[in-house]
Amino acid sequence: MSGSNHHTYKKMELVGSSPDGIEDAISNAIERANETIKNMRWFEVVETRGHIENGKVAHWQVTIKIGFTLEE
Amino acid sequence: MSGSNHHTYKKMELVGSSPDGIEDAISNAIERANETIKNMRWFEVVETRGHIENGKVAHWQVTIKIGFTLEE
Amino acid sequence: MSGSNHHTYKKMELVGSSPDGIEDAISNAIERANETIKNMRWFEVVETRGHIENGKVAHWQVTIKIGFTLEE
Amino acid sequence: MSGSNHHTYKKMELVGSSPDGIEDAISNAIERANETIKNMRWFEVVETRGHIENGKVAHWQVTIKIGFTLEE
Amino acid sequence: MSGSNHHTYKKMELVGSSPDGIEDAISNAIERANETIKNMRWFEVVETRGHIENGKVAHWQVTIKIGFTLEE
Amino acid sequence: MSGSNHHTYKKMELVGSSPDGIEDAISNAIERANETIKNMRWFEVVETRGHIENGKVAHWQVTIKIGFTLEE
Amino acid sequence: MSGSNHHTYKKMELVGSSPDGIEDAISNAIERANETIKNMRWFEVVETRGHIENGKVAHWQVTIKIGFTLEE
Amino acid sequence: MSGSNHHTYKKMELVGSSPDGIEDAISNAIERANETIKNMRWFEVVETRGHIENGKVAHWQVTIKIGFTLEE
Amino acid sequence: MSGSNHHTYKKMELVGSSPDGIEDAISNAIERANETIKNMRWFEVVETRGHIENGKVAHWQVTIKIGFTLEE
Amino acid sequence: MSGSNHHTYKKMELVGSSPDGIEDAISNAIERANETIKNMRWFEVVETRGHIENGKVAHWQVTIKIGFTLEE
Amino acid sequence: MSGSNHHTYKKMELVGSSPDGIEDAISNAIERANETIKNMRWFEVVETRGHIENGKVAHWQVTIKIGFTLEE
Amino acid sequence: MSGSNHHTYKKMELVGSSPDGIEDAISNAIERANETIKNMRWFEVVETRGHIENGKVAHWQVTIKIGFTLEE
Repeated sequence: MSGSNHHTYKKMELVGSSPDGIEDAISNAIERANETIKNMRWFEVVETRGHIENGKVAHWQVTIKIGFTLEE
Repeated sequence: MSGSNHHTYKKMELVGSSPDGIEDAISNAIERANETIKNMRWFEVVETRGHIENGKVAHWQVTIKIGFTLEE
Repeated sequence: MSGSNHHTYKKMELVGSSPDGIEDAISNAIERANETIKNMRWFEVVETRGHIENGKVAHWQVTIKIGFTLEE
Repeated sequence: MSGSNHHTYKKMELVGSSPDGIEDAISNAIERANETIKNMRWFEVVETRGHIENGKVAHWQVTIKIGFTLEE
Repeated sequence: MSGSNHHTYKKMELVGSSPDGIEDAISNAIERANETIKNMRWFEVVETRGHIENGKVAHWQVTIKIGFTLEE
Repeated sequence: MSGSNHHTYKKMELVGSSPDGIEDAISNAIERANETIKNMRWFEVVETRGHIENGKVAHWQVTIKIGFTLEE
Repeated sequence: MSGSNHHTYKKMELVGSSPDGIEDAISNAIERANETIKNMRWFEVVETRGHIENGKVAHWQVTIKIGFTLEE
Repeated sequence: MSGSNHHTYKKMELVGSSPDGIEDAISNAIERANETIKNMRWFEVVETRGHIENGKVAHWQVTIKIGFTLEE
Repeated sequence: MSGSNHHTYKKMELVGSSPDGIEDAISNAIERANETIKNMRWFEVVETRGHIENGKVAHWQVTIKIGFTLEE
Repeated sequence: MSGSNHHTYKKMELVGSSPDGIEDAISNAIERANETIKNMRWFEVVETRGHIENGKVAHWQVTIKIGFTLEE
Repeated sequence: MSGSNHHTYKKMELVGSSPDGIEDAISNAIERANETIKNMRWFEVVETRGHIENGKVAHWQVTIKIGFTLEE
Repeated sequence: MSGSNHHTYKKMELVGSSPDGIEDAISNAIERANETIKNMRWFEVVETRGHIENGKVAHWQVTIKIGFTLEE
């Protein structure tokens, strides 16, 4: 994951949503996090679910954890 | 999830399949459930797997739980 | 759990809700199930969560599995 | 699991019991389910437990999920 | 969970405590979070434990995750 | 958890029951353990379930682990 | 599980072994526990494994939890 | 899963990657495995994660288990 | 598990099948592995499932991990 | 694990602590158990945690299960 | 865990790294967190992994959750 | 984890042992794997346990998964 020896990473948990699909819900969450978090490095999918309206998937909702480097 | 105080939801477990992808397998299961279940509200992905034929994915198979409102 | 040798039980998964608390949400789900299911024997709590409105818990939502005897 | 592309499977959860052993408890549950469910395809063991009387196993109790094809 | 398509939710993990019970420990955590977090939407119970003093429960301690909407 | 450096704790697993609720089932188990165990320090809820009779919860049954200090 | 309202159960964890099979390994553990424990009520299988010698199963080893009533 | 009675399957664990999406990462892993493994039958998704660069998903990384028939 | 200090074990995951029962499915997988693997030491059951045909169990399918000593 | 066919093992759960590290916390728990338990055979780490004081780890706390042979 | 009745704790998830070992990776994460967080009380190990370079462990990477008291 | 887009990684599961400690058991397994596997990239700890002899830890046994790049 890193070159220097003492990097510390923080993980935060987000739920992204999208009417279009799983990858898009994840990308939306990362795009939103990018407004305030620098140095994001990886994500892990925790849970995939969605909202159903009128017998169809209305929103895909994906919970992810994002890991980012804490500045030293 | 709701406005009224005493809603009860039931969850059922389905496996949807599709030759095209994960979202499509989920949508197929929900579409099939929609023939007999009213008031579906959400789904949760339980497991994602698939069938391999001739070295390629032949069917995506996604197990989901669907939550729907029990009528009062 | 039983006296006779060949009892078969079925489990179904419900989400009960209540503005008043966890036990009440569970009891509401069981009360609703009692309208159509006979011979309920036990329940198991799967997940406890809730809806927040205006900085307070608005509804407690408890997912349970209910086991009941299948008639022979 | 299948040939046609859009099969949907439903899973239901049962607890079978038997004084004779684990396989027999599973087979009893499947035999009971066969009275009302067509097109059962597979089962998965969820939990194995039992009832003890007078220092001996009186009943083996096995929780399984049964997957069956929903007719189209 | 939402109306607009691109909502992103953040989840944070808190441990609430109370001498009075499980619901009260959860409500205390949410009340404390409400001082700094807007738009809390739901919570999920992660773990329930407690502190014993003199052979009695002295504090109920409940770990929850709280989901809230990130403003756009 | 402690001041001295070499404390060892033991955990034991109990199931408490009560007709009145979850907290009461836990307190009953701790009260019973208090007859023979000294220096109980904390508990953790492992599982919550219950017995249903006549369509209502007859007993709440809560499995907990209790941690206590081993005397030196 | 019980008639009286305040029963407390204790669970202990054993590993039974047998050269003959899974049910026999479980029964051996319960038979051994019966020498010192009264009022055993149920068991739950935690893990199934075994020892291999010369390319064959030499012993089946099954970890179970046994629940028994604490006397009042 | 099979017709003959004594089939044995082996499962191996791979991580596939792709800049394009989850299905593509899975398909890449299966395509790579197909170079050396015959008779692949199914896969199961174990974990979905990814690498983030410049605030965007750079690679989707999906861990799968692949089951294949051992020849007799 | 061993006498010498630096033994390394490898674990591989197999699915054995049998029309006759759980122990037989496990034994079949170990017997098949014995054709190519030396020094097998233990196995762990990961999952038990089966194939249903005509309302009866047609094959028992048990996933196990087998641990064997790597030669030095 | 054993030579004779009918060995039964019991597992007990302890939390060891140490200011010096994880291995030391485990060894302390085993040393304490050795005062009253004979024939300890193996341990399994269940959870690793610790107490923080003044921004440093003050005690490492490791929960283990210890397996020991029940005498016949 | 506490004296006053209404303490609320927050948990955050960090990944510490070190070329020297597991305890050092944990201590590095806590030392880094200590720059901005007051009142840290405990940590829990979530996952232990590491980076391999040239056939040796280059960095130990340990994911922990840190609990700290929210000021009132 | 990588630069090129289509890397595939394989994971294998090993148990390393050592009389000296957890890190040493892991390093021993990786050192042994290095004799036959090229391009090892990371490891994940799956389980930590050990063998007890004469009331002391005789061997630390750590199960890890090792990820390595499949050559193209």
